[in-house]
Amino acid sequence: MAQQFAIGVDYGTNSARALVVDIATGAEIAAEVYDYRRGDAGVLLDSSDPNLARQSPADYIEGFLSAVAGAVTKAKQTAGFDPQRVVGIGVDTTGSTPIPVNAEGVALALLDEFKDDLAAQAWLWKDHTAHREAEEITRKARGGEYPYLAKCGGVYSSEWYWSKIAHCMRTAPQVARSAAAWVELADYVPAYVTGNLHPSKLARGICAAGHKAMYHEEWGGLPSAEFLESVEPGLSRFRFDTKAVPSNHQAGLLCAEVAEQVGLPAGIPVAVGAFDAHMGAVGSGCGEGTLVKIMGTSTCDCMVAPLSKRLPDVPGLCGIVPESIIPGMYGLEAGQSAVGDIFNWFVKRLTPGEFGTGAEAHAKLTDAAAKLRPGESGLVALDWNNGNRTILTDPLLTGLLIGQTLHTTAPEVYRALVEATAFGALTIINRMEEYGVHVAEVIVCGGIAEKNPLVMQIYADVTNRPMKTSRSGQTCALGAAIFGAVAAGAYQTVEAAQAKMTGVKSTLYEPIAANVAVYAKLYSVYKTLHDAFGTTGFSGSLSGVMKDLVAIRHDVRRGAK
Amino acid sequence: MAQQFAIGVDYGTNSARALVVDIATGAEIAAEVYDYRRGDAGVLLDSSDPNLARQSPADYIEGFLSAVAGAVTKAKQTAGFDPQRVVGIGVDTTGSTPIPVNAEGVALALLDEFKDDLAAQAWLWKDHTAHREAEEITRKARGGEYPYLAKCGGVYSSEWYWSKIAHCMRTAPQVARSAAAWVELADYVPAYVTGNLHPSKLARGICAAGHKAMYHEEWGGLPSAEFLESVEPGLSRFRFDTKAVPSNHQAGLLCAEVAEQVGLPAGIPVAVGAFDAHMGAVGSGCGEGTLVKIMGTSTCDCMVAPLSKRLPDVPGLCGIVPESIIPGMYGLEAGQSAVGDIFNWFVKRLTPGEFGTGAEAHAKLTDAAAKLRPGESGLVALDWNNGNRTILTDPLLTGLLIGQTLHTTAPEVYRALVEATAFGALTIINRMEEYGVHVAEVIVCGGIAEKNPLVMQIYADVTNRPMKTSRSGQTCALGAAIFGAVAAGAYQTVEAAQAKMTGVKSTLYEPIAANVAVYAKLYSVYKTLHDAFGTTGFSGSLSGVMKDLVAIRHDVRRGAK
Repeated sequence: MAQQFAIGVDYGTNSARALVVDIATGAEIAAEVYDYRRGDAGVLLDSSDPNLARQSPADYIEGFLSAVAGAVTKAKQTAGFDPQRVVGIGVDTTGSTPIPVNAEGVALALLDEFKDDLAAQAWLWKDHTAHREAEEITRKARGGEYPYLAKCGGVYSSEWYWSKIAHCMRTAPQVARSAAAWVELADYVPAYVTGNLHPSKLARGICAAGHKAMYHEEWGGLPSAEFLESVEPGLSRFRFDTKAVPSNHQAGLLCAEVAEQVGLPAGIPVAVGAFDAHMGAVGSGCGEGTLVKIMGTSTCDCMVAPLSKRLPDVPGLCGIVPESIIPGMYGLEAGQSAVGDIFNWFVKRLTPGEFGTGAEAHAKLTDAAAKLRPGESGLVALDWNNGNRTILTDPLLTGLLIGQTLHTTAPEVYRALVEATAFGALTIINRMEEYGVHVAEVIVCGGIAEKNPLVMQIYADVTNRPMKTSRSGQTCALGAAIFGAVAAGAYQTVEAAQAKMTGVKSTLYEPIAANVAVYAKLYSVYKTLHDAFGTTGFSGSLSGVMKDLVAIRHDVRRGAK
Repeated sequence: MAQQFAIGVDYGTNSARALVVDIATGAEIAAEVYDYRRGDAGVLLDSSDPNLARQSPADYIEGFLSAVAGAVTKAKQTAGFDPQRVVGIGVDTTGSTPIPVNAEGVALALLDEFKDDLAAQAWLWKDHTAHREAEEITRKARGGEYPYLAKCGGVYSSEWYWSKIAHCMRTAPQVARSAAAWVELADYVPAYVTGNLHPSKLARGICAAGHKAMYHEEWGGLPSAEFLESVEPGLSRFRFDTKAVPSNHQAGLLCAEVAEQVGLPAGIPVAVGAFDAHMGAVGSGCGEGTLVKIMGTSTCDCMVAPLSKRLPDVPGLCGIVPESIIPGMYGLEAGQSAVGDIFNWFVKRLTPGEFGTGAEAHAKLTDAAAKLRPGESGLVALDWNNGNRTILTDPLLTGLLIGQTLHTTAPEVYRALVEATAFGALTIINRMEEYGVHVAEVIVCGGIAEKNPLVMQIYADVTNRPMKTSRSGQTCALGAAIFGAVAAGAYQTVEAAQAKMTGVKSTLYEPIAANVAVYAKLYSVYKTLHDAFGTTGFSGSLSGVMKDLVAIRHDVRRGAK
């Protein structure tokens, strides 16, 4: 049979990337990146408000046209590629990134009237202008004993859909009045390229709706009009009645106008969109028993469990949404608020000159830290310098380091910080397992996994699970391509597509038994500190903590002689 | 009346210093330092045992002869000085630094047979070879419900008299057999220079005996023979029956042989010796209501209270010995295991290159830390990097830092460490006050007090007490000179001599009310952590600690706008 291809289009914070993939093998035939042209690397800022972060929908449209056209042009140089053999297209994006549109589904920002109005642009995921509205939604949902927060960790975020819309209504009523609907970027792109823009008809993805808009079948979709009106009169106008669906559904077929500009035939199925981390998890090999950690400055942890398991609410998990990652499965999203950010902070703020700066310092600290044995520093840290997203969902928590002596060195602290993030990872895994979601192995993707074998080995030893790295360096776009192929019917299931199109690298990090044993003791110290400082129900004693660390240190050092 | 003078001789770890003082004014006429010539800057080491630290008694003798002769020669160039007008001599030394002597009181190390035997030398205060013996003494004293540890914080140290003698008996029996007695350096020097060397006759100071040899009138002097025999058969042979006395007593009169070599007339009264910190406290102005902190790498805190108060045992205080500092007063000794050492550790191990190294780094970090307001970093530290001497008497405790974010800077941590040592200082003060010893003001001496106004102001704000610095830069030798004058009868009391001979510098650090209020909140956090990690009885909750720090930080930052 002739080769067939799918195209994944991945919208990041600063650029869009198109990837052409051979659907039989996952081979990545061609890629093209479009760097957003507006604002500061694609982000529209307001010097008077550091919380504001917007994007121009024009960058999204140009991004699709330019990146897909470029990738297709490159792919044509590969034997076996033919635009006619592109069976499907998938799209992943940042989120929650809602865009106000008019009654025809045209983004207000593309109209002359609103082109310079920041409130009419896309409200980028990291826009935090709506923090007051988020607090109000949380308070109202709790006060009225509404169920809406049960699936998103108990706290509604300023980054999310309803907070942003309510804030727009209060601060930019001219935009809110002209908006007929708000559309998540993940839905907007598929709608635009298929021409199915009309708000009442465009496909809404379950990923964005479920994780950011409190959409859940259990309570009939979005929160009730009555609840939304209690947050802000008029807010219920932005409810939508469309059933939100997973990305094995089609948003439509590539429309002629767009097809022509990107060098593809019209009529190619385009999958319903979803978030980058979720499609990235699919592109990394996420499946039952396999946790995917997308590890960078922070982490996004994605996991699935069969719908047949009837999963209870898992306290502290950011989101549990049926079919948000893989159809037929619960999608579970967790995260660590800071991982690489903590290592970077230490290098920037507390690393002596002898280790150099930046990447050199990371390398030298890592080399020195790799010579240490688990437990020999006597240190334990909490990884909360940026709060704790999972399982405590508490942004006001802070860092802690314990066990310092007059001999404690920078590499010892660096290693303790790496270990702290591994303990944080284990805490998430343990919480999932407590609620019946078995985690047999971990696949890591992101820069740290590729660059730092020490981090990977520590994670393997701390979690006592094999750590793998995803084969692809562009797992989000690959995941989008997989959904393109599935939505087009080239594969019956996401799992079948994954079996052919994803893989892991040959380097496998297996737990080392001796290290696992020491880390079990250190984790017990971490967990004691975690519960003492992070929860209200702790009733244990801390008087033995420093002694335990000294004893572990002593044993390790003596054992080494 | 013609001027009169006293000479104070101060034996430190690396040198001896003689100071000639005008007893009417405290004016320091002349000084001379003798650097010990043996070993490594005066310390005899054993490369196979890092715990070993000895000193040659020959350095002590040469030190007296050379330093006093030099000081007298220099003093002669001052109008008004005449060796005939030297009324008394006082001596202070390190301790516990016991020296084995023969039946005539001659140090064994000075005999040909033993001159190269490390066990026959002085066992310097910081020799830790006897840690096992110390543990045994502690265990035996507790097991037998003996009272001996009640006055020294409940734990007997490897640095102290009986531990060292027992260790010598076990490891160097040839020395122990030849020893007729063991004499503290503080007693050995006055004995040597007065010729009253015979072990049965030489004066024993209450300072060394009370703080290091468990000597207490309450139980009839030294621990019972039966107890000592239970520690090590034969140990009771080194009990002495002499009554230990304070330093307003004379050890004897300067003998002709020594007098001639130092250019003084024979017959000058020589005071009973005491430890450097205690005489330093007297030289700094220690008195009722005035705590003296000798602040360097660690601190020694000295305080007095009238004997008429009948002070109870104060839990956690290193030593409470009647008349060990000032006659007629309880002498209370406390200490912080690390102060300057913690700041030095941070500069050496965790300070970025932009701040330079060593003294430059201290200065730059201090400048940056001085620009911060109390509470604005959101950090609190425990000052336990070298354990906690007072009030927890636990060497196995370790450091802790809490409140870090991704923005935490090196100057913020540096300031938090300074504040932690101030909180440690306040904890000692509070403990004294709880047991009826009022601390109205603090006089600080030592290098940090002179060099770092920020440290002094933070201590004033944290303790909510005025902080003063002692006028003299050589308070130990000055204190010794004061005892020389008092023992000679030139003053009736130590207090009368202090009134004339000591003083403080004009720079006074007064508490700043706004800072005091913030530090009261931060101390409450410190105390919670202190009790949670340092004691077994803590039953409070730590779940509010990080939130409290964030709230304090928020208030301070908002208040500054």
